[in-house]
Amino acid sequence: MNIDELIAAYPDFPEEGILFRDISPLLKSAEAMAWTKISLANGISEWSPDYIAGIDARGFLFSALVADSLGIGSIMVRKEGKLPGKLDTRNYSLEYGSSGLSIQTDSNLKGARIVLMDDLLATGGTFNCAKELFEFQKAHVIGCAVVIELKGLKGRESIDCPVFSLKQYD
Amino acid sequence: MNIDELIAAYPDFPEEGILFRDISPLLKSAEAMAWTKISLANGISEWSPDYIAGIDARGFLFSALVADSLGIGSIMVRKEGKLPGKLDTRNYSLEYGSSGLSIQTDSNLKGARIVLMDDLLATGGTFNCAKELFEFQKAHVIGCAVVIELKGLKGRESIDCPVFSLKQYD
Repeated sequence: MNIDELIAAYPDFPEEGILFRDISPLLKSAEAMAWTKISLANGISEWSPDYIAGIDARGFLFSALVADSLGIGSIMVRKEGKLPGKLDTRNYSLEYGSSGLSIQTDSNLKGARIVLMDDLLATGGTFNCAKELFEFQKAHVIGCAVVIELKGLKGRESIDCPVFSLKQYD
Repeated sequence: MNIDELIAAYPDFPEEGILFRDISPLLKSAEAMAWTKISLANGISEWSPDYIAGIDARGFLFSALVADSLGIGSIMVRKEGKLPGKLDTRNYSLEYGSSGLSIQTDSNLKGARIVLMDDLLATGGTFNCAKELFEFQKAHVIGCAVVIELKGLKGRESIDCPVFSLKQYD
């Protein structure tokens, strides 16, 4: 399936010079989302994950969906200030600006195999931040999976684990 | 299935006096999420929705999942400043504070049957705001569905369409 025509492109959003790739048309298509679910699940199943960790907010669209199709649970990686309880928090810089991410401190994550999931991989800053958060909990981040990879930003090279992507743009 | 023990409660988050109901343990359980998916899908299928609209951010965990199980597409209702393209935006007040929501202007939504989905129904402010956004696009909001309903805040009474919830708290 070619999901190209279901990924919209918006120049200069959210800032001048950024070409924003938007999954809204993909989401609206039941057929394309079913294909996306199966393709992401197939791409990461050989890593034998215990959990998929979705990155706030668009990653949540795929993390729970793909986790369910693999029969595993999912975890939220949230922007700062959004999660209750005892947290671990890190700051990161992203394609435009900087922010903080948090996960809940969870002793049951020790030794767990985690796949990080988001709609898009840009510079890899978000993924590396999330990876640090889980590794601090003594979990193993065994891979990252995205719908869209912006290859020109070389995020893949910055992340010290396998990356699976469905659609690549230069 | 009793999902009670998989919904955590945090007093005084994000503000004093708020008891925050947290779905993190539910998300981590593959079995409980499979049950949640099927239960939400069964609860709304009789409304014959064309799309499920997930509310940013935790609604995204359920909107794409349940839409996929019903073989329909989903739509993002996002916090202000997050969506590209031509938008319709409304402000709303919520259980704590106020904010803005946006959807993309979409002429194909005319006449479409929409179910709004989030993890939790509190006062109904978010849902009423999202409902207005879709009705301005001439779509029909035929129902709202949540995992958790805080009955004491009477959100259900404030929303002029059916509400389906899996777990109610006083």
